[in-house]
Amino acid sequence: MRYELYYWPGIQGRGEFVRLALEEAGADYRDVARTRGGETKMLALMGDPRVKHPPFAPPFLRAGRLLIAQTANILAYLGPRHGLCPRGEAGRLFVHQLQLTIADFVAEIHDTHHPIGSGLYYEDQKREAQRRAEDFLANRAPKFLGYFEDVLARSGGTYLAGRRPSAADLSVFQVVAGLHYAFPRAMRRLERRVPRVAALAGRVAARPRIAAYLESPRRIPFNQMGIFRHYPELDR
Amino acid sequence: MRYELYYWPGIQGRGEFVRLALEEAGADYRDVARTRGGETKMLALMGDPRVKHPPFAPPFLRAGRLLIAQTANILAYLGPRHGLCPRGEAGRLFVHQLQLTIADFVAEIHDTHHPIGSGLYYEDQKREAQRRAEDFLANRAPKFLGYFEDVLARSGGTYLAGRRPSAADLSVFQVVAGLHYAFPRAMRRLERRVPRVAALAGRVAARPRIAAYLESPRRIPFNQMGIFRHYPELDR
Repeated sequence: MRYELYYWPGIQGRGEFVRLALEEAGADYRDVARTRGGETKMLALMGDPRVKHPPFAPPFLRAGRLLIAQTANILAYLGPRHGLCPRGEAGRLFVHQLQLTIADFVAEIHDTHHPIGSGLYYEDQKREAQRRAEDFLANRAPKFLGYFEDVLARSGGTYLAGRRPSAADLSVFQVVAGLHYAFPRAMRRLERRVPRVAALAGRVAARPRIAAYLESPRRIPFNQMGIFRHYPELDR
Repeated sequence: MRYELYYWPGIQGRGEFVRLALEEAGADYRDVARTRGGETKMLALMGDPRVKHPPFAPPFLRAGRLLIAQTANILAYLGPRHGLCPRGEAGRLFVHQLQLTIADFVAEIHDTHHPIGSGLYYEDQKREAQRRAEDFLANRAPKFLGYFEDVLARSGGTYLAGRRPSAADLSVFQVVAGLHYAFPRAMRRLERRVPRVAALAGRVAARPRIAAYLESPRRIPFNQMGIFRHYPELDR
């Protein structure tokens, strides 16, 4: 089956967590909004009253007759089909739990530069962003990263849920890469306290399909419109 | 099977979405942290290095040998076991998608009074809270509520995913009730634009088990420590 991924074409954003899973799986997919006329098609689909299960926002995935939205939901759908989660119920639930914790982390990362409103410019909430980023780097980032470090220490394996990488492992790589882009100074310091997380990110990046993807034009570079943005004044 | 729910004893918080599902299901459960010595037990479990799948934060649910964290993950586990989601894959994925959208909404509601940091006092971020709440009431709340109104218009049933209530329907009730507590003035105005959502909330509240629960001492009243807080200065 050929999947259709729908996501804003100019950014990695939340769509990137799905792209990484599709790439690691070697799945056949089309990144629709990045094809000619694709963004118009995406917007038309979002506004189409005949769609029975409308998405609140991209990303969403068409898989045969299914239209699935919400990043973690898409990954929970793909996981068992492509070996991106353990087979047993306990492991599968745990990987989804980790994925939802990553989603919370990502929302907080986004809000470091948009603490007042996602519809306002950064420049209009710069002062608030400085306070929020400071609290994020001092308290929240260490807490989330420390949690994943602890999970790795307990997993008894190379990855979060054992010896094989799950979608959550790919997502942790993405978050670590994004934090290095957004907060290079703070992240060098933070990463020293979470060596297992740093090693995991390196391990994911070195996986053949992920490495090939990262080198390809399919990987959109980090930029100042996505979740992870580099504003030097926020990187203390 | 008797479930054990673990959540902070003094607030509804995110635990309330799980309580509502357990109550509607007529499930046998113990709200552990509200029993004698229970909060200590919860904290001990969170710090126990022998727990293989540690939670990042409450709520978490013990179901036999499983320990499951993240609100939406717990509800995805309970749904098929207690008739709180459709039987088919498409409907089940859609209810989880709605649940994750509600989780995003809830995080934004929380941040109206804590836009800078969840570890700081409201008083230390009051000015920022006023800006964030203003944007929330003008843009975000209408967008989320309008989305659920649209889903109800398309569902062709009484509830979000058809003729039977899902965990997501119970959660929409909780969000509507919470918004009325936090923003009584704004919510009266907002609700007029989403009559289906208002009717859904009323329908859930009138379900026999939910009505009995809401009247019982098991329902913690809304208060100024939870997600939904009433600060008149934020309710424009």
